[in-house]
Amino acid sequence: MEDWTISEIEPLIRTNPPVRLVLRESRNQHTVVSVKGIEIGGREIIVMAGPCAVESEEQLLSTARAVKAGGARILRGGAFKPRTSPYSFQGLKEEGLKLLALARAETGLAIVTEVMDARHLEIVCAHTDILQVGSRNMQNFTLLEEVGKCRKPVVLKRGMSATLEEYLQAAEYLMKGGNDQIILCERGIRTFETSTRNTLDLNAVPMLKRHTHLPVIVDPSHGTGHWWMVPRLASAAVAAGADGLLVEVHCRPEAALSDGQQSLTPSDFDCMMKTVRAVAAAVGRQ
Amino acid sequence: MEDWTISEIEPLIRTNPPVRLVLRESRNQHTVVSVKGIEIGGREIIVMAGPCAVESEEQLLSTARAVKAGGARILRGGAFKPRTSPYSFQGLKEEGLKLLALARAETGLAIVTEVMDARHLEIVCAHTDILQVGSRNMQNFTLLEEVGKCRKPVVLKRGMSATLEEYLQAAEYLMKGGNDQIILCERGIRTFETSTRNTLDLNAVPMLKRHTHLPVIVDPSHGTGHWWMVPRLASAAVAAGADGLLVEVHCRPEAALSDGQQSLTPSDFDCMMKTVRAVAAAVGRQ
Amino acid sequence: MEDWTISEIEPLIRTNPPVRLVLRESRNQHTVVSVKGIEIGGREIIVMAGPCAVESEEQLLSTARAVKAGGARILRGGAFKPRTSPYSFQGLKEEGLKLLALARAETGLAIVTEVMDARHLEIVCAHTDILQVGSRNMQNFTLLEEVGKCRKPVVLKRGMSATLEEYLQAAEYLMKGGNDQIILCERGIRTFETSTRNTLDLNAVPMLKRHTHLPVIVDPSHGTGHWWMVPRLASAAVAAGADGLLVEVHCRPEAALSDGQQSLTPSDFDCMMKTVRAVAAAVGRQ
Amino acid sequence: MEDWTISEIEPLIRTNPPVRLVLRESRNQHTVVSVKGIEIGGREIIVMAGPCAVESEEQLLSTARAVKAGGARILRGGAFKPRTSPYSFQGLKEEGLKLLALARAETGLAIVTEVMDARHLEIVCAHTDILQVGSRNMQNFTLLEEVGKCRKPVVLKRGMSATLEEYLQAAEYLMKGGNDQIILCERGIRTFETSTRNTLDLNAVPMLKRHTHLPVIVDPSHGTGHWWMVPRLASAAVAAGADGLLVEVHCRPEAALSDGQQSLTPSDFDCMMKTVRAVAAAVGRQ
Repeated sequence: MEDWTISEIEPLIRTNPPVRLVLRESRNQHTVVSVKGIEIGGREIIVMAGPCAVESEEQLLSTARAVKAGGARILRGGAFKPRTSPYSFQGLKEEGLKLLALARAETGLAIVTEVMDARHLEIVCAHTDILQVGSRNMQNFTLLEEVGKCRKPVVLKRGMSATLEEYLQAAEYLMKGGNDQIILCERGIRTFETSTRNTLDLNAVPMLKRHTHLPVIVDPSHGTGHWWMVPRLASAAVAAGADGLLVEVHCRPEAALSDGQQSLTPSDFDCMMKTVRAVAAAVGRQ
Repeated sequence: MEDWTISEIEPLIRTNPPVRLVLRESRNQHTVVSVKGIEIGGREIIVMAGPCAVESEEQLLSTARAVKAGGARILRGGAFKPRTSPYSFQGLKEEGLKLLALARAETGLAIVTEVMDARHLEIVCAHTDILQVGSRNMQNFTLLEEVGKCRKPVVLKRGMSATLEEYLQAAEYLMKGGNDQIILCERGIRTFETSTRNTLDLNAVPMLKRHTHLPVIVDPSHGTGHWWMVPRLASAAVAAGADGLLVEVHCRPEAALSDGQQSLTPSDFDCMMKTVRAVAAAVGRQ
Repeated sequence: MEDWTISEIEPLIRTNPPVRLVLRESRNQHTVVSVKGIEIGGREIIVMAGPCAVESEEQLLSTARAVKAGGARILRGGAFKPRTSPYSFQGLKEEGLKLLALARAETGLAIVTEVMDARHLEIVCAHTDILQVGSRNMQNFTLLEEVGKCRKPVVLKRGMSATLEEYLQAAEYLMKGGNDQIILCERGIRTFETSTRNTLDLNAVPMLKRHTHLPVIVDPSHGTGHWWMVPRLASAAVAAGADGLLVEVHCRPEAALSDGQQSLTPSDFDCMMKTVRAVAAAVGRQ
Repeated sequence: MEDWTISEIEPLIRTNPPVRLVLRESRNQHTVVSVKGIEIGGREIIVMAGPCAVESEEQLLSTARAVKAGGARILRGGAFKPRTSPYSFQGLKEEGLKLLALARAETGLAIVTEVMDARHLEIVCAHTDILQVGSRNMQNFTLLEEVGKCRKPVVLKRGMSATLEEYLQAAEYLMKGGNDQIILCERGIRTFETSTRNTLDLNAVPMLKRHTHLPVIVDPSHGTGHWWMVPRLASAAVAAGADGLLVEVHCRPEAALSDGQQSLTPSDFDCMMKTVRAVAAAVGRQ
């Protein structure tokens, strides 16, 4: 990843109107985000996989080992969970972060987990390699400002009804703060269609790649809401030009505390990875 | 307003599944939110009016006097402004709060202003009568939890792509925390239509009134994005059963730092109020 | 209604680019559509009411008498029914048209009914006073062309996902053919919200009134899908500036072959009309 | 393609509720539509390509030869064009049909073209191999009934705001009439996003394949509205499981009378086909 220091940013944002830092015209190369030797935005398709929520040591470790065996490079898992209902499971919070750190130590996988609140940033940063800002917080501007001050890579998920313009403006909040290690993530938008949880918008992949220098990944689990659709849409995302995938995998989806119906089993995941590898090769990626 | 103490809430939320506190079945009467003698959810239609953003003492005071003369009971004005672009005017922040407090002292109007971050809650509470949680933060759950612990009335705006079910779950976060002084506010949803900024969803008014005991107001300024449509939709909202209105008024809309095109002048506002009063009477309100 | 003859239209559409006939700039007055002495687009709010589908002589006549007593000026009723499923009741077709003509003879009400196919145009015209082009046919351009050649007034319903620009272009097909007796009808658009059948878009009323010279009515029955919401939204539509209403009324909604859940009983209708009259007066209409 | 005669359909649709003929449970095998030896729904990915509208002999023939050379099996081209504005080019109509028949004779490609009106069915059938029912006519039920009586294969495009359930009900109109040679076509849906013409919904591909026995193709030209996005989304569609593609190609897009901005040049098309072939092989197709 190139070095993009604050001193380089400042002259750009002081112009009037400011040069938008996330746009192609502000850089003459693609941004590659590096985490523990993993390059997101390079030739390799990077897969982040794991459970929706961290539930227990046994659940997390068995899933982590399985996704590593299947070819994932990064473990996902939620410790702080934004839930529609206040009566739903809200995540293990700090205890969940510790389990993620344990899974990292055991497996060597890098970790990505969501931060919901600026006040949690220090503790989340202490346990994770990549921060995630969730869809519901895509326009939580004070959170974006704080994450922009961190020097941790961040997966910024598209809001479920955000236009691509609004999405890039949200990323601009991060970059203006000095954090350019941003991974964009299309995760399905809200439409009139009710047979799927969201409508995965794969148009977003080439559109974002054309207008920004940032890497773009796709989350087909939230994008569809049905585990049996995930492998198909994961392959489609790679064919559309995505730099990586974010996929929910659970060792026992039927017992998951959240999102079980959209989680792959480890063997589904292995199977998906075989096709994803073939499609990646077909479009000139690894 | 009835007293709904924590001790009454606890038994309800400990049942399994919990009784949802915002729904009609949990209460046998409408909630009326009282602020400085103003009752929101009673017979009177309550109008909250003022500029999108607090810009200066002169701008705020002249607008405040004008809306008071026109019949508004509550002054709105943003000190912390959530803006799509990080390069847009972000509000006067604490300085803006002080100007709001000054306008209250001068005019006797109650104040409503947005809180964007839990860390600002103490200072915002110190200067306002009613908190506002904006559309983009409708599912900022940690903010909702903190506002739920306050004993200040709160206008909770509907997210721009929130279903009514999700909206009521967001209000549930507030009530679960013990704050039942909630005013719901329909402010337009995101649809395919591009000639208006949002699509004001007046279906929401009778639907919310049927399912909750909470008062419901309507913001036709954001709901349409065009000042010349505001009076028509304000009247329509009252005819649909709204308990109040939230309207942007600016003494000089053409010079406004934000949302000028959807702001009424004081004389437009006076004119709107005449029709609103007539429509209110036609549907049995004041 | 003014006379707008083909000879006046032709010079306009031969300019390049053509003057769009439906827009305000092509006329210096509002269009008032006259049918049997009823003026749509004048000071009076015109109510069209009746069952979704014509089902039987008894059903139609009893409903017709009831809506006339309640103050409706025009009887609606579908003989040709566009239904999502081919296995649903498709209407009584020609038999239904005859019943409508009978109801007209008995009650003196004017009739509006849908035409779905250019091949039915002659027979439908023979039995009705006003044609209706339904939402699903708003962009059935060959049907629009044929209806444009008729000299019958036509209610053109907005497509359920048509932008207002597309809607006015559809009306332009009618006017280009020489038929300027067009009544626009907002009937709810398709959005992400699932608690209502459609989202009634009352923003459309002032927006259409500003840009066209044509009368605009509102259908709160399809716009909401719930009978108990209809009176509230009917009042709101009038407050928003609508020139009339199109409302489903059935003498026995629970036995209706289609749309029973959104049909008013005659007594609900009477009750609605009282409020609608009061709101009309409040906004300077009759 | 198996034989599905009227005598087999009738017992199914006489049950109560009727067995829906388009659903998987009504057949124990996939439907393969055969046209001039081309099998749609078999192992091979079938590509239909050509101009939006037939404009002239030279334009059509040069494009036809180019798409044949690139690997297309079927030539698309509109003779009857549904256009939003009545002042836009409406197609060459019968003259266009004759040019399509000429291109077929010259190149041996099969032809697909749109029928907009039941009254044109005879003449369109006389010149084409496959009928197309366009998005705007997906719920033109009387047209569907007439096309259902034909024994021509038909591409039924998804309406731009049709749910998949409504889409399958529209296909049911065709099958109920006895025409089971139906090819479903996802072509983008209407959402809030404005940077693309429509939002291509690739979730629809596996969802339709799971619930129906019919072949499913994808139109990335209308689905995106930008020619430079088409190759990426075409590959993604194949990876998602599509049985074929419908792509706009024009020998001189910059001079096209419609949809030039979403049309590939012949050399773009060749390039796209290379990647599409590689992706097809990666997912076990030809």
